Formats: sequence, C-alpha cells, structure tokens
Amino acid sequence: MAPVASDNLTVVLHKIGDLRLEQRPIPVPKDDEVLLEMACVGICGSDVHYLVHGRIGDFIVKEPMVCGHEASGVVSEVGKNVKNLKKGDRVAIEPGVPCRRCQFCKEGNYHLCKDVIFCATPPVHGNLTRYYCHAADFCFKLPDHVSLEEGALLEPLSVGVHACRKAGVQLGSNVLITGAGTIGIVTLIAAKAMGASSVIMTDVQEKRLKLAKEFGADHLVLVKTGDSAEHTANKIRELIGDSPDKTIDCSGFESSVQLAIEATKEGGKVVLVGMGAPLAQVSTIKITVKELEVHGSFRYANDYPVALALVASKKAEVRQLITHRFKIEETINAFETAKSGDALKVMIHVHKDPSAI
Amino acid sequence: MAPVASDNLTVVLHKIGDLRLEQRPIPVPKDDEVLLEMACVGICGSDVHYLVHGRIGDFIVKEPMVCGHEASGVVSEVGKNVKNLKKGDRVAIEPGVPCRRCQFCKEGNYHLCKDVIFCATPPVHGNLTRYYCHAADFCFKLPDHVSLEEGALLEPLSVGVHACRKAGVQLGSNVLITGAGTIGIVTLIAAKAMGASSVIMTDVQEKRLKLAKEFGADHLVLVKTGDSAEHTANKIRELIGDSPDKTIDCSGFESSVQLAIEATKEGGKVVLVGMGAPLAQVSTIKITVKELEVHGSFRYANDYPVALALVASKKAEVRQLITHRFKIEETINAFETAKSGDALKVMIHVHKDPSAI
Amino acid sequence: MAPVASDNLTVVLHKIGDLRLEQRPIPVPKDDEVLLEMACVGICGSDVHYLVHGRIGDFIVKEPMVCGHEASGVVSEVGKNVKNLKKGDRVAIEPGVPCRRCQFCKEGNYHLCKDVIFCATPPVHGNLTRYYCHAADFCFKLPDHVSLEEGALLEPLSVGVHACRKAGVQLGSNVLITGAGTIGIVTLIAAKAMGASSVIMTDVQEKRLKLAKEFGADHLVLVKTGDSAEHTANKIRELIGDSPDKTIDCSGFESSVQLAIEATKEGGKVVLVGMGAPLAQVSTIKITVKELEVHGSFRYANDYPVALALVASKKAEVRQLITHRFKIEETINAFETAKSGDALKVMIHVHKDPSAI
Amino acid sequence: MAPVASDNLTVVLHKIGDLRLEQRPIPVPKDDEVLLEMACVGICGSDVHYLVHGRIGDFIVKEPMVCGHEASGVVSEVGKNVKNLKKGDRVAIEPGVPCRRCQFCKEGNYHLCKDVIFCATPPVHGNLTRYYCHAADFCFKLPDHVSLEEGALLEPLSVGVHACRKAGVQLGSNVLITGAGTIGIVTLIAAKAMGASSVIMTDVQEKRLKLAKEFGADHLVLVKTGDSAEHTANKIRELIGDSPDKTIDCSGFESSVQLAIEATKEGGKVVLVGMGAPLAQVSTIKITVKELEVHGSFRYANDYPVALALVASKKAEVRQLITHRFKIEETINAFETAKSGDALKVMIHVHKDPSAI
Repeated sequence: MAPVASDNLTVVLHKIGDLRLEQRPIPVPKDDEVLLEMACVGICGSDVHYLVHGRIGDFIVKEPMVCGHEASGVVSEVGKNVKNLKKGDRVAIEPGVPCRRCQFCKEGNYHLCKDVIFCATPPVHGNLTRYYCHAADFCFKLPDHVSLEEGALLEPLSVGVHACRKAGVQLGSNVLITGAGTIGIVTLIAAKAMGASSVIMTDVQEKRLKLAKEFGADHLVLVKTGDSAEHTANKIRELIGDSPDKTIDCSGFESSVQLAIEATKEGGKVVLVGMGAPLAQVSTIKITVKELEVHGSFRYANDYPVALALVASKKAEVRQLITHRFKIEETINAFETAKSGDALKVMIHVHKDPSAI
Repeated sequence: MAPVASDNLTVVLHKIGDLRLEQRPIPVPKDDEVLLEMACVGICGSDVHYLVHGRIGDFIVKEPMVCGHEASGVVSEVGKNVKNLKKGDRVAIEPGVPCRRCQFCKEGNYHLCKDVIFCATPPVHGNLTRYYCHAADFCFKLPDHVSLEEGALLEPLSVGVHACRKAGVQLGSNVLITGAGTIGIVTLIAAKAMGASSVIMTDVQEKRLKLAKEFGADHLVLVKTGDSAEHTANKIRELIGDSPDKTIDCSGFESSVQLAIEATKEGGKVVLVGMGAPLAQVSTIKITVKELEVHGSFRYANDYPVALALVASKKAEVRQLITHRFKIEETINAFETAKSGDALKVMIHVHKDPSAI
Repeated sequence: MAPVASDNLTVVLHKIGDLRLEQRPIPVPKDDEVLLEMACVGICGSDVHYLVHGRIGDFIVKEPMVCGHEASGVVSEVGKNVKNLKKGDRVAIEPGVPCRRCQFCKEGNYHLCKDVIFCATPPVHGNLTRYYCHAADFCFKLPDHVSLEEGALLEPLSVGVHACRKAGVQLGSNVLITGAGTIGIVTLIAAKAMGASSVIMTDVQEKRLKLAKEFGADHLVLVKTGDSAEHTANKIRELIGDSPDKTIDCSGFESSVQLAIEATKEGGKVVLVGMGAPLAQVSTIKITVKELEVHGSFRYANDYPVALALVASKKAEVRQLITHRFKIEETINAFETAKSGDALKVMIHVHKDPSAI
Repeated sequence: MAPVASDNLTVVLHKIGDLRLEQRPIPVPKDDEVLLEMACVGICGSDVHYLVHGRIGDFIVKEPMVCGHEASGVVSEVGKNVKNLKKGDRVAIEPGVPCRRCQFCKEGNYHLCKDVIFCATPPVHGNLTRYYCHAADFCFKLPDHVSLEEGALLEPLSVGVHACRKAGVQLGSNVLITGAGTIGIVTLIAAKAMGASSVIMTDVQEKRLKLAKEFGADHLVLVKTGDSAEHTANKIRELIGDSPDKTIDCSGFESSVQLAIEATKEGGKVVLVGMGAPLAQVSTIKITVKELEVHGSFRYANDYPVALALVASKKAEVRQLITHRFKIEETINAFETAKSGDALKVMIHVHKDPSAI
C-alpha cells in the first residue's frame, strides 16, 4: 500500500462567524464507502447562512462542523464491497445518504427519508476538506470530458433538474421562473434542456436578469416593489401570448408565490423551490377554481444522473455559473465574497494539483 | 306525434330573495340535444347562495335565471343526430357543456373550458323546470336499478369522485377529510369506494361527525375554536398510527388548509375542494420541505360515469344523503329548509308521477 | 437470555423429486435482521415446479435448497439496529431483499434489482423451517386482528395488488382477468378492493370459474379449445355492454394474451402476470392502432403494506383461498396435494402452537 | 367581397394506379370551418400505398378519393363562429377531426375516436387540392418565421412527438429507435428536442443510417439479415455502456419488435409506431420478468402545438427532411418519386405563388 497522505486541511465552522482551517485525521472508508481526495467544493447559500446565523430552522450548529456539500473528488481508496468505482475515478458527490430502509427510501423518495445523513447539515460534517469518505453509490463517475468543477456544480444543477421534473417541464412548455439567483439560473438551464419553448424570468434586480439572458432566458420581467401580481401576470401574458403552464418559484417571497398562482394557466403547475418566509398569504380559492397543482420541491432524488447527462451532452455551459475561484487555503476570503452577494457561484479548489480539475 | 304537454312549471330567481314559480315555454331540442321531462333536482349550496346574495364571485344574477343543476330526467324527445339515447331513457344530467374546441376540451380537461355553459350559473339557466333541453352526450343513461333520485345525486357525488381522483386515493390510502358537510360526505363515499383503508373526518360540529360515521368514516376528530393545526395533526397521527397520505379539504377554511399542510405525510397530497375565504395564510415552506402536492379540484370532468358505476354497483347508499323531499310546487319551502342548515340534501321532485322516481 | 430452542426442522429440496425434512442450525440475526419463529408457509407453484423440474428458466437447483417463500412468523430476537420490530411481534415476510444501492432500488423499483436475495430461488434458501432470519424492514407487523395465515397469504395477494396497480384499476374499471387459478383469484380480490365495477373472469375449467364466483367475480366466461379471440371478446362485450378497459392475464397462455389484445378497449391496459410459453404470437399492429399499453408485472414492490391494508380492513376474506392445511412434519403430503392440482392454496403450519395462528 | 377563384385543381385517386388531376368545385366553409388556399402537401407512405394497393387494412378505396393529409394553407374565408383565425393566417392542418362527443374525445384521446374524419383515409377526401375547408380548431396558426413547408411537416413530426411522449422520453433518456425511415427520423428529432442524452438508430440500410447521423443520431447500428436480437442488443449495450430505457420501433418488423424487447432496460418502455406484419412472435415472458411497458402509438393527439413549438424554437431544421419538391401539376411524377424509395419526403407545392411558401 502506498504511503498515505497526512495533510487533511479542513474548513470547520465553530460557531457564528467563527470559521477555521484545521488539520483533521484522514478518515478510513467503510466497506460500502470510498475515500475521496476532494477536488472542488462550491459554496452554497446555506453554508453562508450557518456562518452568519448559526442555524437554519431547527438545524443548529452546536458543535464544530465541517462545511461544504457541493463537491467533487477523486477516488483514493475503495471499501471492500465497492464495485461501481475504482481508484482514480473522478466523481461527483451526492451529499445526502439515506437510511435505505424506510418507506420513503423504498418508494424512490429517499430525499424525504427522516434519517438521511446530509453533508454540512448539523450535526453532520460536510466535505470541504482534503480527504473525505462517502457511500460509493452516491458518487457518480464523471466521463473524461466532464471536469471536476462541473462535477461539483451537479449539486445545484440537480436542484434545478428536480424542480423541473416536479413541474413536468417538457417539449413545448412555457415556463415562468420567479427569481434569477443561482437556483433560478440552474432551473432555467434544466428547463431549456428539457425542451421548454419559452422561459420567462422575473427578478427585482436588473443585473440578475441580464445574467439570466446569458443563460438563455427567452423573456425577462423586472418586478418593482408594489407591482401587483395581476399587473405582472398581464405583462407575462402579453410577452408570450399565453399564460405559462409551469411556474417555478426560486425566490421564496410571498409576492412571487402570489404571482405564480396568478400567472399560471388553468390546470398548470406551480413548483415551490425557494425557501423564504415561513408563512405566505395565498389565494387558495384560485388554486381551486383554476385547478392548479402546487408542488413543493425539496433537494433531489435520482436527479444526479440526469444532471450529469445534461452536462455531459453539452446542453449547457454550466461552468459559466462560477464567478469566483479560491484555493481551500483562501476559504475565509471565499466566504466573504459569497456573503457580499456579488457572486453567482464561488468555487473552492481543494485539490493540490489544479491542472487536474 | 303525441300531443306535447303545455305545463312547464319553472323555478326562476329574479333577484335577491325573489324566487318565483312561473310557466315557461317548452323548449325544442337542437340536433345534438334531447328534451327531458325533468325528474329530480337537488338544491345545492350555490343555489341558496344566489338566492341570498345574488352573486358568487364574478357571477352575478342580473337577469331572471332558472335555478337548479343537480338533476335527472326522462328523455322525451331526441334531436336528429342523437344516437346514444332514445325516448324513455332515464338519465343523469351533467350540467356543464363545454365548447369542445379549446385546448382544455381537447386535452380532457373540459371543466376548465372558459366557454362552458353551466346550468344555473348566471347568465345560464338551470333545470329546475318540467321540460328542459340538454346536450345528449352530457346525459348518462341510468340502469334500471338506479333511481332518478340517485341520478340527481350523481352531481355532488361527482365532485367527491373528482377530488378523490385528484388526490390519487387508492387501496390502502389514509385519507383525511376536513369538513363533514355535503361535499365532505360525498368525498368520504368516493374515498371508501376507491379502497381507502381509513378515512378521518374533522368538523367543528358534533352532529356532522355523527353523520359522517353513518356513511362509514373510520375516525372522527371534533375540532374546537383555537385548536392549533399541530394539536389536531398530532391527534390524527395518534388515531391512525401514521400521517394521512391524502388530505382533502371540503371546508374552505384557512384553519383547515393549515391543518391539511401540517397533517399530511411528506410527499403526500392535499386537495382543495371547498371554497372559502379568498385568501389564506399557509406555510409555503412546509409545502416545500415536505414536498407536498397541493391540488385544486374544481367541479368534475369524466367523473359522471365513475360516480354512476359507484352507485350502480351498490358501493354506497347515496340516497341516505337526502334528508328532505319536496314537490316542485313547494320549492319556496324547499329553499327555506336548505337555508336553515339543518338539511344535508334537499331533493325536489319535479316529475308528476312520483312513483316513477 | 432465555434458553434457545434447538429444534429447527427444515424442508430441503435436494434434487428433482427429493424433498427432505432435516434439522438445521438455528441462525443468528445480523444487526438489521430479526430471528423469526416461523408460523405459516404457503406452497407456491414455483415450489412445486422446482420439486418436479429442478429448475425455472435459468434458476437451477444445484445444491440442496430450503423451500418456501409465502410466509409469516413471530419475532424471536432482534438485531441491534432494528427499531421497527420487537420480540413477540407477528409479521408477514416479504421474501425478496434487494441490494438497496442500484438504480432500481433507488428509484423505488427494488423488485427489478439484479442482486435481490429472494427466498427459495436457487441458490437462496427459503423459509419453510422453524427458525429463520430476515431483514427487519421486509417484515410487516400484523395488527392483532390479522391472523398469521393471512400474513402468509400477503405474498400471493401482493402479486395481485401489484398487477392491479400496474393496470391502474380504479373505481369504475371494467377488468378482464384471464385465468382463474390462484393468481387470477388474488388479482380478482385486489381489483374489487380497488373499486372495479365489474370483473370478468375467463378459464378453461368450469370449477375454477365457480370458485371465482365465490370470490366476487361479476361475470364468468368459459373458454373452449378452439374459441377464437374474436369470439370470446364479443361474448365479453355483450356481457358488460362495453370493452374492458383493463385486462390482466394470469395464465401465461398465448391464447389468453391474444384475447387480451383483442378484448381490451382502445387506449386500455393489458397486464401480463402469468408466465407461460417463452414466445407468443401477438398482433402488434392491434397494439399500435388501438394504442394499448401492455405492461409486464413481476412480483411486487411496495405492495405488502397495501395488501395488508386490504386484509386488515376486511375488504376480502382471503383465508378462503386456503383449501388444505398441513403441519410441517407432513410437508411431503402437502406437496403431493399441491401437485395434484386440486388445491387452490396449501398452507403449512410450522408453528408448534397452532392456536397461535 | 373579392371575386372568388375558380381554379380548384385537385389530385384524385380513382382506383389502383389511377391518379388524376381534376377540377373540383371550391367548397364553402361551415360555421366552424375555414376555407383554405392550400400551400404545401407532403406525400405520405399511406398515399402511395393507396395508389399501389387500393387499400390499407379495412380502409378500401371504393370511390374516387382526393389524396393528401400532410398539409398547410392560408386562410381564405372564415365561418361565422370562427374566432381563432382570420383571413390571411398561415396555418398547419391537423388532418383528423373527431366527433367531440364520445368518451375518447372527452378524455383527451380524440385520436382514438371511432367517428374521426381523417383526410385521405377512405371514404374521406384529403387536401391535395387548391381550396379546402377544415375545422378551424384543427388549424394551427404559424408564426411569421415558420414556413408553410414546415407547417406541412408538422404532420409527420407530430407522429414522432406523440411516440416520444408515449415513451416518456426526457432529459437524460437513452433512446433506441429501430428503423431510420421518415418516421424514424422525425422520432429522432423529437427525442433530441426532449433532451434525450443519446439516441441509437438501427436500420438495415447504410444510407438511411447516414441520414440519421445528419439529423443528430448519436449512435448507429447496421443490422444484417440473420443478426439475432441478443447480438444486436449486446452491440447497443456496448455502445452506450447501458441498456436503452426507451425503445421506439419505427419499422413494424417482427425482428425489430424482438430487438426492442431484448434491448430495453428492465422497467423501460417500448413504443410501437411502425405498422408491419399483422402478427409478430414476441417474448411475452421477457415483457413480464423485465416488467417492460409496451405501448402502441397511433397518429397523435394534442401534439401539433408541441411539434410547432419544436419547429418555432429552432430545435431542429425539419426542412432538411424534404428531398424532392414538385408543383401540384407534377403530382404524377411526385408519386413516382415517392414510390421509388429514394426520397425521404416529397413535398408538393400547391400554392400558385411559390415565393409565399
């Protein structure tokens, strides 16, 4: 056996505002796991939220926690039961590993499993570290022509894919996406790849809409404070000559949910991905008489292979999502950039040999 | 040709509180229509609402309007293109006839057709009258052993069937129905006929729950003012040892919608049938993280044959829904009874020969 | 710890025609398993097939194999990770345990897993034995009022439930079931519980049709050698006044598959459960122009809870399926009876205390 | 009103081999119809089949019949009830107009309507003529940037769209298409537009595979006489590193259906579009144990808007399907070319002003 590396630089959140780079022991893979030499880890809004607020809902950082869950790596060691991977394989890492035994897991909805172990959701450690072990079947081998940066981007992209599948986006769909942040953009990418004939994006910031344009949005609607749902819905109807049959809210704002219900065609689908205020006032009577279907969309399940197929077949240049790159040693700066709101996606390079990315 | 009858006693709503019995000309069927000698017409909440308030939402009684849309009759004459019916056939009448040409009609969602002609929805006349013409393909022939009263009851029953189909109620489902009024009861009947293994009914009135019990509800939960959604959801969970996977709101109350979202199992479905307050405050974040599907359910489409199959195969004794019976001449009294809130279903006998019902 | 029993009488198939009762060591449950004191085990057609032919397709009895897979038992010991069961729980045993890691498992189709371990499918041992270990999450706790015989019957019943779910049987469906053997009967039971308004059964044996009648079949069609598919399809159409919208073949005969394609309504579903000749000549052009959907139905997945709900809510008296009962010591006789073709279901009582069944 | 044209040159099939150009009276639109000045009409395999054989199955040319059903035109006059179109609108014509009243029509499956009036299916006349009336709601207005040739091509393209929707082709699907004729190519176009990550085409002719390549096929497999289904299925598996999850047979050959069943992944879908021999020997047992879904796909329903969206959003250059163009006066030659087998799509220009196409 080759001598094992000893450097396992790791990004650990100790408490609000207290992010540290530490050495941690290199873990040993269990029988069904692989040990990964980590390559790229994107910073997610939730990572920043834990740093700033110390919690998301009932998930509270009580003990020091390793950050990161949008990740790719290279297989360095395989557990004895592992058959799908071998040393040297470059993989994208699906960060949530479920119990495999509950009703949700058996029915194909493993993302609803109550015992899921999800990277960087307290008290579970993430993978912004040099060496990390993960269940082998939640690692997806990348073809040679897919980069490790793209591998890390499969995580947010899977959120978009999942939302679009919930919405039933298909060839010919008119899709309204409310909110042009990172999730809005990955949803746009997924919708176009599924054959949507037009995608309308709304946002309150002009610069975000410009970005959406670059990623292929067909129509842009700048929403201003005080614009009524009716007003914006009418604008959208004029733009596409019809009502959108699918609306995907990627903002979580009450006003966006109201717009979604107002704008969507009778019998259409509204998908809620964005998480915002805990309560929103919605027109339940419109849901009823328009016979809308309002679906929640949470994380992803069985979406990594689809997201990978999207990237591998060059349907989109997802790497353009990355606006900033840092080395793991510069993680504190990377989080500062992510916090500033200027970045679409901040990517941290963990791998020592950047030419391998 | 036999001499045509001349008595066409008709119930006409002139304006708020002004309901009259009048003679109207007997209509002549178009090529695709049948002339019906009306048999039974149930009074719906909407009939009463128009009498008391003169409007429902944007539908306003501006001109005198014939009441009634829960109806059955006997074919008295057939238009020249009609092939599915003949004189003497006893039929249930589906009251909404769509345009047959729009996208909704072509896709099987004709109930969402914007040009639908729906009985007793202003300005369209209803069928609480002795003679009435209707599109032949929206008349469903009753087998001999199904009564004309049952035929009229197919209308509310179809609302329940539609809601349960939207919810995907199936063998083994645990179904929560919030609200034990007429719609709650027909939904209960449909849910049991589809194989639901347990149906839990909630209401704020004890006497309604008792009725639900008689129609086969497995569990009853009396909700009190001020009970939180969490409190009631826990009660339900204790009763059935699990969370319901389907919840159908038949009340339209904000508190019921909140209960639905709180009580329903992750990945489950919430169906909104009841129409209440235009706005409700709901936990959109719970819809997202529990990945619920909230479906509106409006009227029915392709549900009459299913409702008829339910009744014809004796899966339920729907006639027990009828608590009061009146002759058409007694319609004013009938509406008084319906208004009082003491009745579950008031049925008006239009047919001159009651033995034929 | 109580003294462990030492008697583990076990039914072992050594080779064609060589069935033996032997003592085997009592196994020890792994962390996720339970040790079961076996109660009831039904004899399946496949058990008999292995005894007579030594193989089914590519599955060949090369080493002695314990028989049995339609089983129930009582939890005697629980592995350290088991949370859903405790000692004394009475359970039905779903006999196939999948890998939990492949695409099929993750998508909810674990019955298609290529690494499934399925009781009494060579080289995997079955559970016709006094003591047996099984994955705890594939054991379903029976409510007090469901017997252990019923628990064992959930296996064939799940086959029927799965087939009916594949067919989309629902309230109002007209269902044609070709073949009134055990699988035909359990499919009939499931179809009625799902709300089918009429079930037509065909068979070549009058006595089987009589049995089907007892289990609630609405229409019976005796098929004679040489009857053409058109002839029988017409008969069925006359009986129900329409074409069946679902047909489930439980025979595997070429003529039944041909009848299914001929008789089923345009746009309807044909489900193939029965396994017969490897090849059948079918009218693919009729599948195309009638736009039929022909679905294979293999074993079951996520159907045990549904089958249990069916039994627990008394929708059918499945115990009437059992025509013969034997003690485990009488197994040789039991197989003789099963072979004779006179039995619908032969049930072996393994439990020492028959009052506990 | 402008003086009405008097030239209505029309292509009429009198009997086998007897195709004539005749003047016919210009028809007058009914209330729900439009009069169209025809622009482009493609020749379909069925047109040629009627010319050569005088029948397809039970559809027999007994009286002279106008040919053509793949058509586009310009609205010349509108019936008094028509609201969706106005004079001058350029439209694609969906050639089958259903009864709008039967169960199939009401459920959204109007293509299964038994009373459908379908252009150029005896005894119904087609639209290879200068002036033609059609139901306005089965005419789809073309955006300015979509040509009338493309409008005519929506007919075969809709066949491909319908088949791919039946198959559930979606982002990431691996699709096997057996047969690279016109229907195979339009299915390929639809599959790619729906996000298929790889499409494998098989054919027995090398030149057809080359064409498939030009339309974006990812993998090509030349099948030779005598190649077993197993052999070809293995080849396909090696090419894509997996089994296709969708297979669409566009050939109708028994060997292709057998390949489809052999090659498709467990739980996958096989769609039969091609119509060939009336009977085919298939492995029903493989359908069962692999739990395949074999769907017939017949014509199209609600697919024209989707096909139009595909063309309008430039997802494919469908005009490359046209290998030969003729004026209506040259129709006899056009049919000769179509018969020769050298053409992919022969397009007839009916419009007098070819610059308007």
